[in-house]
Amino acid sequence: MKVSIIMGSLSDKEIGKKVMVVLDKFGVDYEQRVISAHRSPGIAVEFAEGAEANGIEVIIAIAGKAAHLAGVLAGITPLPVIGIPAKSSTMDGLDSLLSVVQMPKGVPVATVAIDGGENAGLLAVQILSVKYPELRQKYKEYKIEMVQGVEDMNRELNS
Amino acid sequence: MKVSIIMGSLSDKEIGKKVMVVLDKFGVDYEQRVISAHRSPGIAVEFAEGAEANGIEVIIAIAGKAAHLAGVLAGITPLPVIGIPAKSSTMDGLDSLLSVVQMPKGVPVATVAIDGGENAGLLAVQILSVKYPELRQKYKEYKIEMVQGVEDMNRELNS
Amino acid sequence: MKVSIIMGSLSDKEIGKKVMVVLDKFGVDYEQRVISAHRSPGIAVEFAEGAEANGIEVIIAIAGKAAHLAGVLAGITPLPVIGIPAKSSTMDGLDSLLSVVQMPKGVPVATVAIDGGENAGLLAVQILSVKYPELRQKYKEYKIEMVQGVEDMNRELNS
Amino acid sequence: MKVSIIMGSLSDKEIGKKVMVVLDKFGVDYEQRVISAHRSPGIAVEFAEGAEANGIEVIIAIAGKAAHLAGVLAGITPLPVIGIPAKSSTMDGLDSLLSVVQMPKGVPVATVAIDGGENAGLLAVQILSVKYPELRQKYKEYKIEMVQGVEDMNRELNS
Amino acid sequence: MKVSIIMGSLSDKEIGKKVMVVLDKFGVDYEQRVISAHRSPGIAVEFAEGAEANGIEVIIAIAGKAAHLAGVLAGITPLPVIGIPAKSSTMDGLDSLLSVVQMPKGVPVATVAIDGGENAGLLAVQILSVKYPELRQKYKEYKIEMVQGVEDMNRELNS
Amino acid sequence: MKVSIIMGSLSDKEIGKKVMVVLDKFGVDYEQRVISAHRSPGIAVEFAEGAEANGIEVIIAIAGKAAHLAGVLAGITPLPVIGIPAKSSTMDGLDSLLSVVQMPKGVPVATVAIDGGENAGLLAVQILSVKYPELRQKYKEYKIEMVQGVEDMNRELNS
Amino acid sequence: MKVSIIMGSLSDKEIGKKVMVVLDKFGVDYEQRVISAHRSPGIAVEFAEGAEANGIEVIIAIAGKAAHLAGVLAGITPLPVIGIPAKSSTMDGLDSLLSVVQMPKGVPVATVAIDGGENAGLLAVQILSVKYPELRQKYKEYKIEMVQGVEDMNRELNS
Amino acid sequence: MKVSIIMGSLSDKEIGKKVMVVLDKFGVDYEQRVISAHRSPGIAVEFAEGAEANGIEVIIAIAGKAAHLAGVLAGITPLPVIGIPAKSSTMDGLDSLLSVVQMPKGVPVATVAIDGGENAGLLAVQILSVKYPELRQKYKEYKIEMVQGVEDMNRELNS
Repeated sequence: MKVSIIMGSLSDKEIGKKVMVVLDKFGVDYEQRVISAHRSPGIAVEFAEGAEANGIEVIIAIAGKAAHLAGVLAGITPLPVIGIPAKSSTMDGLDSLLSVVQMPKGVPVATVAIDGGENAGLLAVQILSVKYPELRQKYKEYKIEMVQGVEDMNRELNS
Repeated sequence: MKVSIIMGSLSDKEIGKKVMVVLDKFGVDYEQRVISAHRSPGIAVEFAEGAEANGIEVIIAIAGKAAHLAGVLAGITPLPVIGIPAKSSTMDGLDSLLSVVQMPKGVPVATVAIDGGENAGLLAVQILSVKYPELRQKYKEYKIEMVQGVEDMNRELNS
Repeated sequence: MKVSIIMGSLSDKEIGKKVMVVLDKFGVDYEQRVISAHRSPGIAVEFAEGAEANGIEVIIAIAGKAAHLAGVLAGITPLPVIGIPAKSSTMDGLDSLLSVVQMPKGVPVATVAIDGGENAGLLAVQILSVKYPELRQKYKEYKIEMVQGVEDMNRELNS
Repeated sequence: MKVSIIMGSLSDKEIGKKVMVVLDKFGVDYEQRVISAHRSPGIAVEFAEGAEANGIEVIIAIAGKAAHLAGVLAGITPLPVIGIPAKSSTMDGLDSLLSVVQMPKGVPVATVAIDGGENAGLLAVQILSVKYPELRQKYKEYKIEMVQGVEDMNRELNS
Repeated sequence: MKVSIIMGSLSDKEIGKKVMVVLDKFGVDYEQRVISAHRSPGIAVEFAEGAEANGIEVIIAIAGKAAHLAGVLAGITPLPVIGIPAKSSTMDGLDSLLSVVQMPKGVPVATVAIDGGENAGLLAVQILSVKYPELRQKYKEYKIEMVQGVEDMNRELNS
Repeated sequence: MKVSIIMGSLSDKEIGKKVMVVLDKFGVDYEQRVISAHRSPGIAVEFAEGAEANGIEVIIAIAGKAAHLAGVLAGITPLPVIGIPAKSSTMDGLDSLLSVVQMPKGVPVATVAIDGGENAGLLAVQILSVKYPELRQKYKEYKIEMVQGVEDMNRELNS
Repeated sequence: MKVSIIMGSLSDKEIGKKVMVVLDKFGVDYEQRVISAHRSPGIAVEFAEGAEANGIEVIIAIAGKAAHLAGVLAGITPLPVIGIPAKSSTMDGLDSLLSVVQMPKGVPVATVAIDGGENAGLLAVQILSVKYPELRQKYKEYKIEMVQGVEDMNRELNS
Repeated sequence: MKVSIIMGSLSDKEIGKKVMVVLDKFGVDYEQRVISAHRSPGIAVEFAEGAEANGIEVIIAIAGKAAHLAGVLAGITPLPVIGIPAKSSTMDGLDSLLSVVQMPKGVPVATVAIDGGENAGLLAVQILSVKYPELRQKYKEYKIEMVQGVEDMNRELNS
């Protein structure tokens, strides 16, 4: 099982790290690359055309502003593509969100929240869990951990 | 392989049909139900707790306004949950979109475009394709069909 | 008379404090808890199902982003639920506001302004005042105090 | 127990009717009036100053555009004020929503969804239920009815 | 000739100062006061009812969030009311702007830009100039000064 | 006393009529013209430069989309300029509103609500009333009429 | 001189016609094609790579929702690309506008108004006029025609 | 070949610098000026009327808030006008964007992203490249450089 984390720019690195922390926790293998749909379209096409053959099972694309990266990759590959809209210096992420989520009929992008690196990682795990039962098991444990985390917060709040 | 299509209200039926047309085309089995996160929370919890054991592999949730359905189901089930924000009579779907996509850290919802029934169906197929190679194959054929469809439009435009 | 202040995360603590300052001032008893509609849905259900029996009369729920907490609790309990949309790092609170206020027909949430801790506390007092005349009396005194406060500002401005 | 339904204009009548259907169902007494915060400010002040003495326990205010009605009444009366933002011919209700919900510190308005007449009625019932146990009982029955309604939709969907 | 500068809160003081700098420059007499439409409605009504008799010719109202101050005063007084929407900690001033400018038919508020203290002052001068020729003359000189100011910027840019 | 009603296009005619109904009611003389800031800039400049000398006392400018008309006229003439943002086929009037109201420091436009023809007319009357006492008197009578109108609505509602 | 009008879907045909009316008027040669950046990415790449060699001098791309077409073409071709955001059934064109205009550093798209077919045609003419003096001349005549058009509207208004 | 960079205010200087860095890189001659459409309309008209005769081939206009500069110049000159919406202290640039891009039929402005100085410079180069083959050649080299830049980021990311 392998996930490709594609960033539109090196400035998306921090969001990429949040994805990797999640994938590390679940023991999912991954690669990370910078590929711009606009500045390096040839590399984007080449990557997307070869992704399935290279053993990638889920793609996560991070981009901001007129964020076409996820959609461009999804137009080429048959793999599920998760899109993370990145907040940029203007428009508070609304431009990125709409550019990622409002895909026209025929080419879906599985969109998570603005800057939502953790959730993109978790969604990749959920998708892979359809095939890999051990990931499903770990995901259930993770949900129990979250309950525990909320209870810890409660103790902290009322202590 | 089985998909559950959950609508927050009977008024989401038309969007549900668009999902079913896609799943029928790909030969994916599905069920459809109306479950309201707000008006029938007990049923929502019961459904989500039992979905995995009932053989469901992907959940698609359709809801409008303060659209909590997808998020509520995703909080309970470990299955991947696809959310379709439904446009309602005010706010042009922005309220639904933000309520579905802006999920906090820990519980992702794979969000598609407002009223995006077809893309939700296609995303379910892509997710299932990670496990079922025959669906991957059909998806690739679908992508070739789409190219053909664009070429047909071209002929129509210039005839 | 008792109010439950429920926060979706420990990060909502500061808003919770603003609520408590108001309730303290009016001598209204309260409890505060962290309960996430998404990360700890079981606890949310359990709390909401038991709230009335536990003597709670008004619930105040604070949450951000796709803020489902107030709506989820309101779907279960017959008690009045006040929702405070919390501003998060993106979207300037608009996502939270729409997720809290745009509740579909059948399940209202009494929504106050983004980050509006004080007003949520005051609204709880107003609701309780319908039953408890001594709170109504105190509320009238509070309104007179506010007039005084404005006059003090005037003196400061023109001094 | 008595509710006052105040409309900013006769054009808000349809929303007012939705409120009255709910109050009739629960057997809550009410009056309805047109009072404009802008065009008839004197009447607004007079109404708000006398409301408590006139036996009103909850006020529901309906207004659109720069919708100041609920806030103006809430500034005067100690009673809980529910605000319904009415969608107008421009801005899709966003202007009304923000004008009603974003009340500054000190004067809350319990805001429901845009055009949310039913939910305003239900919220009034919930508030009155704090004092009147028979209304609480009816509200619980209403919640059971809603579950039934969802199950009916299900049967219709799958028949 | 006299202008009343009314602020909804002491926190609007900096915007008020920008108004006063302009009025001082044009030699227009003014008073400044804090009056809250919500927290001190009685004072607001009293002020607005007496403004004309007290020799005020133009009112400038500054308020943020659900900014009803200008509209409430305009509902009472026959004087022209200029509204300045003040940016608050959320919503980037959009709530204030819509609450001030979207006045329903019958009661206009002359709205300037968010935080637009200078322009409110200048608009007051323009309105007074309809009556006072000496102000019109000064305003023309001010327009010439502005051209000079642009030319100075040019020199600075290209030096 | 004379008002100039300038429309950016013939399609703004209906809004212009609403202005004229008000001015007729108050007996204010006016002219109406189509002048486009973009398509006929020379005429716009010529009009604005001559307006004061031609006896115009207030200018009302109606325009939609990137609505520069009011701002362009205000940049030239020392007269008070009232701007009416006109709703166009996209963006629900938000583009027009922001283009009219968000004027930079130095050149104010007195902005009324989107499509707010009546209020622009009333604001013109209020501005002229600063100089003409008979208009002030009529305006006060108009305010009394409005109260009467609200009372009529009340009778209709409760009959 | 030759312009390529590329539509993301046959549903953009009406906007394309508005472009063609303008280009016909100015005697500019053009071709029109349907190419989807998402559904037929291979054709999009092929078109963009060959456009310059095929004698195209300006590209006009029309697309809606997450409108990546213009940006994708601009990422490949060195030709100037004009983007027309098309209004779709939700979001009133805001999604299209932001997806087209908010291009990241390095790859510009010359964006015109939502559904702005005429202006895209005119901008193409302006760009070509930099090279072809006869087009510049025609454009100047067109500007004079527009002034005439405004004067005609005036006559119609005041007749 | 010559480009005119016009700023609405000295505060737009930083965006202007980004334009100049690009034009310097491509060896395109330019001038920079501060001209306010509102504060110095006469200079704006004079500049726009003379631009073509003064050898200018492309105009770039930078302005914020109700950003009329680009549109006003485009209304006068037959030259292509590129508009850069500048983010101001409120509204996150949305007001500027809509004021620049939503030009009515007849007068286009080639709009780039908010604060998009580099892309405005690049678009100017693309437009000039239609006429000057050496610029086209340099632009192709620039596109190759960008690919190199992305590959450098990749090395940095994975080193």
